[in-house]
Amino acid sequence: MAGQQFLATLADHPWFEVTVLAASARSAGKTYLDALRSPGGAVQWFCTEPLAEKFMGMVVQSATDLNLDALDVVFTALESDAARELEPLYARQVPVISTASAFRYEEDVPILVPTVNTEHDALLQRQQAGRGWKGFIVPIPNCTTTGLVITLKPLQERFGLQSVIMTSLQACSGAGRTGGVLGLDIIDNIIPFIPKEEEKVQTETKKILGQVQDGKVEPLPVGVSCTCTRVPVLEGHTEAVFVSLRRPASLEEVKEAFRTFAQNRPEMRLPSAPQHMITLREDPFRPQPRLDRDTEEGMSTVVGRLREDSVLPNGIKYVLVSHNTKMGAAKGAVWVAEVLAERGWIRRGK
Amino acid sequence: MAGQQFLATLADHPWFEVTVLAASARSAGKTYLDALRSPGGAVQWFCTEPLAEKFMGMVVQSATDLNLDALDVVFTALESDAARELEPLYARQVPVISTASAFRYEEDVPILVPTVNTEHDALLQRQQAGRGWKGFIVPIPNCTTTGLVITLKPLQERFGLQSVIMTSLQACSGAGRTGGVLGLDIIDNIIPFIPKEEEKVQTETKKILGQVQDGKVEPLPVGVSCTCTRVPVLEGHTEAVFVSLRRPASLEEVKEAFRTFAQNRPEMRLPSAPQHMITLREDPFRPQPRLDRDTEEGMSTVVGRLREDSVLPNGIKYVLVSHNTKMGAAKGAVWVAEVLAERGWIRRGK
Amino acid sequence: MAGQQFLATLADHPWFEVTVLAASARSAGKTYLDALRSPGGAVQWFCTEPLAEKFMGMVVQSATDLNLDALDVVFTALESDAARELEPLYARQVPVISTASAFRYEEDVPILVPTVNTEHDALLQRQQAGRGWKGFIVPIPNCTTTGLVITLKPLQERFGLQSVIMTSLQACSGAGRTGGVLGLDIIDNIIPFIPKEEEKVQTETKKILGQVQDGKVEPLPVGVSCTCTRVPVLEGHTEAVFVSLRRPASLEEVKEAFRTFAQNRPEMRLPSAPQHMITLREDPFRPQPRLDRDTEEGMSTVVGRLREDSVLPNGIKYVLVSHNTKMGAAKGAVWVAEVLAERGWIRRGK
Amino acid sequence: MAGQQFLATLADHPWFEVTVLAASARSAGKTYLDALRSPGGAVQWFCTEPLAEKFMGMVVQSATDLNLDALDVVFTALESDAARELEPLYARQVPVISTASAFRYEEDVPILVPTVNTEHDALLQRQQAGRGWKGFIVPIPNCTTTGLVITLKPLQERFGLQSVIMTSLQACSGAGRTGGVLGLDIIDNIIPFIPKEEEKVQTETKKILGQVQDGKVEPLPVGVSCTCTRVPVLEGHTEAVFVSLRRPASLEEVKEAFRTFAQNRPEMRLPSAPQHMITLREDPFRPQPRLDRDTEEGMSTVVGRLREDSVLPNGIKYVLVSHNTKMGAAKGAVWVAEVLAERGWIRRGK
Repeated sequence: MAGQQFLATLADHPWFEVTVLAASARSAGKTYLDALRSPGGAVQWFCTEPLAEKFMGMVVQSATDLNLDALDVVFTALESDAARELEPLYARQVPVISTASAFRYEEDVPILVPTVNTEHDALLQRQQAGRGWKGFIVPIPNCTTTGLVITLKPLQERFGLQSVIMTSLQACSGAGRTGGVLGLDIIDNIIPFIPKEEEKVQTETKKILGQVQDGKVEPLPVGVSCTCTRVPVLEGHTEAVFVSLRRPASLEEVKEAFRTFAQNRPEMRLPSAPQHMITLREDPFRPQPRLDRDTEEGMSTVVGRLREDSVLPNGIKYVLVSHNTKMGAAKGAVWVAEVLAERGWIRRGK
Repeated sequence: MAGQQFLATLADHPWFEVTVLAASARSAGKTYLDALRSPGGAVQWFCTEPLAEKFMGMVVQSATDLNLDALDVVFTALESDAARELEPLYARQVPVISTASAFRYEEDVPILVPTVNTEHDALLQRQQAGRGWKGFIVPIPNCTTTGLVITLKPLQERFGLQSVIMTSLQACSGAGRTGGVLGLDIIDNIIPFIPKEEEKVQTETKKILGQVQDGKVEPLPVGVSCTCTRVPVLEGHTEAVFVSLRRPASLEEVKEAFRTFAQNRPEMRLPSAPQHMITLREDPFRPQPRLDRDTEEGMSTVVGRLREDSVLPNGIKYVLVSHNTKMGAAKGAVWVAEVLAERGWIRRGK
Repeated sequence: MAGQQFLATLADHPWFEVTVLAASARSAGKTYLDALRSPGGAVQWFCTEPLAEKFMGMVVQSATDLNLDALDVVFTALESDAARELEPLYARQVPVISTASAFRYEEDVPILVPTVNTEHDALLQRQQAGRGWKGFIVPIPNCTTTGLVITLKPLQERFGLQSVIMTSLQACSGAGRTGGVLGLDIIDNIIPFIPKEEEKVQTETKKILGQVQDGKVEPLPVGVSCTCTRVPVLEGHTEAVFVSLRRPASLEEVKEAFRTFAQNRPEMRLPSAPQHMITLREDPFRPQPRLDRDTEEGMSTVVGRLREDSVLPNGIKYVLVSHNTKMGAAKGAVWVAEVLAERGWIRRGK
Repeated sequence: MAGQQFLATLADHPWFEVTVLAASARSAGKTYLDALRSPGGAVQWFCTEPLAEKFMGMVVQSATDLNLDALDVVFTALESDAARELEPLYARQVPVISTASAFRYEEDVPILVPTVNTEHDALLQRQQAGRGWKGFIVPIPNCTTTGLVITLKPLQERFGLQSVIMTSLQACSGAGRTGGVLGLDIIDNIIPFIPKEEEKVQTETKKILGQVQDGKVEPLPVGVSCTCTRVPVLEGHTEAVFVSLRRPASLEEVKEAFRTFAQNRPEMRLPSAPQHMITLREDPFRPQPRLDRDTEEGMSTVVGRLREDSVLPNGIKYVLVSHNTKMGAAKGAVWVAEVLAERGWIRRGK
């Protein structure tokens, strides 16, 4: 599904042109349209955007045997095991932007979120040197981490972060289609556990908010504790966040920090950037995933219900909604590629 | 709706016999069956249990003009404003068990949860003396408070409570029918705000876990901070709880505390009591509201996902499911009445 | 809600400019923004399109005391009783396009669906003459009728209609907000009855497909029988239709009739018209309300699962999805106004 | 899942004792409890009834290598391909009651629904003789057929059946767990196609309502045409039925036929039988799947919205709800076994 979302995102991209599609051996050699067909013949295209005609007739190549010569960047949407095997093959020659978790926790691999930690791209030099690659691997975070770090970053910058407690209410699309959540399990229900999710969010948050030092990221010394749940929502992760700041901050100062975050950063002028990294809602009944997930084409993190927290030192609490399959997946990855192109890491042939 | 649930609960009660039904002037004088009819004539009975035949023909009396002489106890299911007006009228003569919030925060009024703070009934002497009432008012807590205090009490007893952070995922039934949540608003959605709910949970938790001293409750000095949300679930509130204990506790000790809570208490032998106040689930995918809400007829609070929390001092975290319209409403109130009858506060004429 | 949808539709309309907003006495005198506020102060704007700024500060006038002098057309979104009282007041001076059922069944009132029965506007002459009005009332059909008549019309034209059997699976938005369907009632459920809906569909279908003769509509002599149900879907009515044709038709001929329906009609060149009245889907898993309701901005009726029916003489069956709050409500009504303006019934001052 | 439902049904059965559990080679040799475990170790038991302790430690045998000597009956819950291979192996020695469609359409195989066509068991003699089996195969119908034939049978008996048009709104549980419907696909949606379902219902209905003649079933000469859809409902199939009778019947006569259907039949006195084959509801808002599916433990078909149909000759229409995983699956199959035991086809050793 993430692969399809890449195509939906790249169909009219002003900088990147899709010249090669690759998949497993089962699909290799077929046109993309045929590769999408179920055994019954129905075209399994799941995005709301229609499948662009130019992709339909492209012949799918084998992911294990890919000619990389003419490519400037590879976007991957692989299961973790496949990513561990294939991404290094590609990275020897070409930059790889990945949605998989396989390399996220390696010392020389940055997990990039534009405007939050763009400068972590400094790791790439060490990654290339250390591994002898001409390209590199840059993963985006887990989709639940994305909205969290976007809202934590301005707090960290202005007031410092002591600790973070978060409960997520995650959409069904986050579980994907293979082994996805059954209607039978999620209608009129909550599933209070998503395997490995909490560990990912906790580790990634500290790394993304950390500092590059001596060729690796020094994780931010902040406590992060989560409970991740699945809810009967199609798209858009909702997170109830409680934060302990290092310095006291009034709610007005916090709002100001959210509103102005990343305002004049160069990343915000790129094609996939939202107008605002954070959209602040004053209506206490917002954000709601169905009403707010598509804000600024799913690229803005929507924050509401900002209140003081009486329990944590310098505590505040809020609720955020982040589009898990847009900013949290393919579209966010394309923005990362734009950032890396702008900063000279990816060749812009077009 | 809570009124109907009282009837469903009391239909076959071994101790209490329903002899009078009262409602607003609009319904007074009609048989109960007719009072239930919509303008179109359909009987608006919403419980899954069928309406007992013996109630159908009972003539509804006016709630403002009720003959209390032959009554041993009155169960009320009123909006807050009506409760503030009517409950004192009844309490002058008769014990009142109430689901409304109107009197919960008065100094001489205990909010009772059997086994958690049964001994707060000591306040009733002062309430009767101070107000010159022969009866009294005992409210049950807000349905979101109920499961929380049931799980906090054994922690408080064994390890002490420092602070509590909780995010609720509340069922639609909690909003009732008048002004209830529309399908149009909640399908494929989360509503991150329930007016006044967080304040209620925060205040009630401290009071229920507090000590009776000098004729009033000294609230427990514990920090409590919540975010309350509405989710597309029919029944059963789910709560993600993070607790800071006063003393370190291993997970095994915590489990033991949950498992044995209230075990040999006399309240547990009453007709409406569950077999276990807390049902502990080891399967990490539990508790789920649809699968667990009806545990022990909706009277047991189901706890799972017990883990250490790395952020709070002596931190633990868990997820609970509590049936908001059974233990959290009419059935819980009937259990309170049983407790008060057993302890001599309510006459048992039957 | 329908009123808000009119504003969303008209915000950028190339022909119509909203100069007056009217509502009940309760809202009159307030700015529109204030009139939208709940008692708690939240702005109750329910459309996905943002509220246009130009409407916010407009002062709402009283619907019972409206100055019609400067108006070319009035769009009404009223409950049936209010419509019966107010619409004639307006129609004395100004054309009224109505979503209410109040006048649909009067002899001199056409129920208009562009391209299906545009020529029923011939009734307006009699309506004006008979009632002494300078304006007129033109209602659009019930939202469940709309998709049905759009798909039946090309069948009627080519093959004749003998009888129609239809089961609807209707979205929650069709029930509106006041007295709308509760989440508590519709989650994990079907409600198999919508008061008066089946009668409306049956009567309106025959009238819309009928012929104007002697200043009134001679209903089409076709049997129409429905069962209307409510399902847990937000927007988009799905209808399973079984049709007996007067002449045999191959599935290819039927597809051709659907595909080419209304193709070169002048109504299709108006601002609110879809590109295709009917969008035919070959994938047997379509149409699905969530995936297909927004086809051509909710103005195209999507048809799939076309098959032969073995039971009815010359029987065919299919499934349709029609957007009940776009083509079936405000946006459809605006298209009617465009048609009437184009045909000289409404003055185009702009 | 159907296998688990068999165990839930048979746990306390007065006649049948489960002595052997069989499954694929992957599970063979494990205890049943271990066979239920996911790779992560969680016990995958999906019924609301708890797993009976006596089954937990039973060692699962291989379905392809089953010792049938001590068995009186085998209940199978297999995919169609596996059923085609395994059921004949069992039937050589032992009666097989099957939920699979594999043998439903063979001439010498009856599809049994107690009280509807119990006497089709006459085919078993030919089946045994023709195939040289000591046992036999008796499938139950597709779960969508079940409620339909139960309501059609009394109409056929009293008034004769001309034709039937039906639209189903089917629950997610009907699709099972392997390849089941994803939350992502069904929340806020309808899927208007269930592969092969319509053909099954059409063929099975005619066969079940047919006559045994010359050792095979002569299908009832009745037109049956369906559209089968999937809706966001957990359990309970809803069907909107339109019937053309051979003789005119008043609605009162039809109600009487429904109410009295199968009343004094001997099958109704068996352990799994409902009290009433059909439960008639007068409230026009019923039947609703969530409120009515569990009527008489899911074994009674609930009918409502009975009306005249103006289109079909002697037409009536109604809505039914049938529990697809109780009467329509394991529990219905157990009732079939009881019937066959009572009629001497299955040995009762217990």
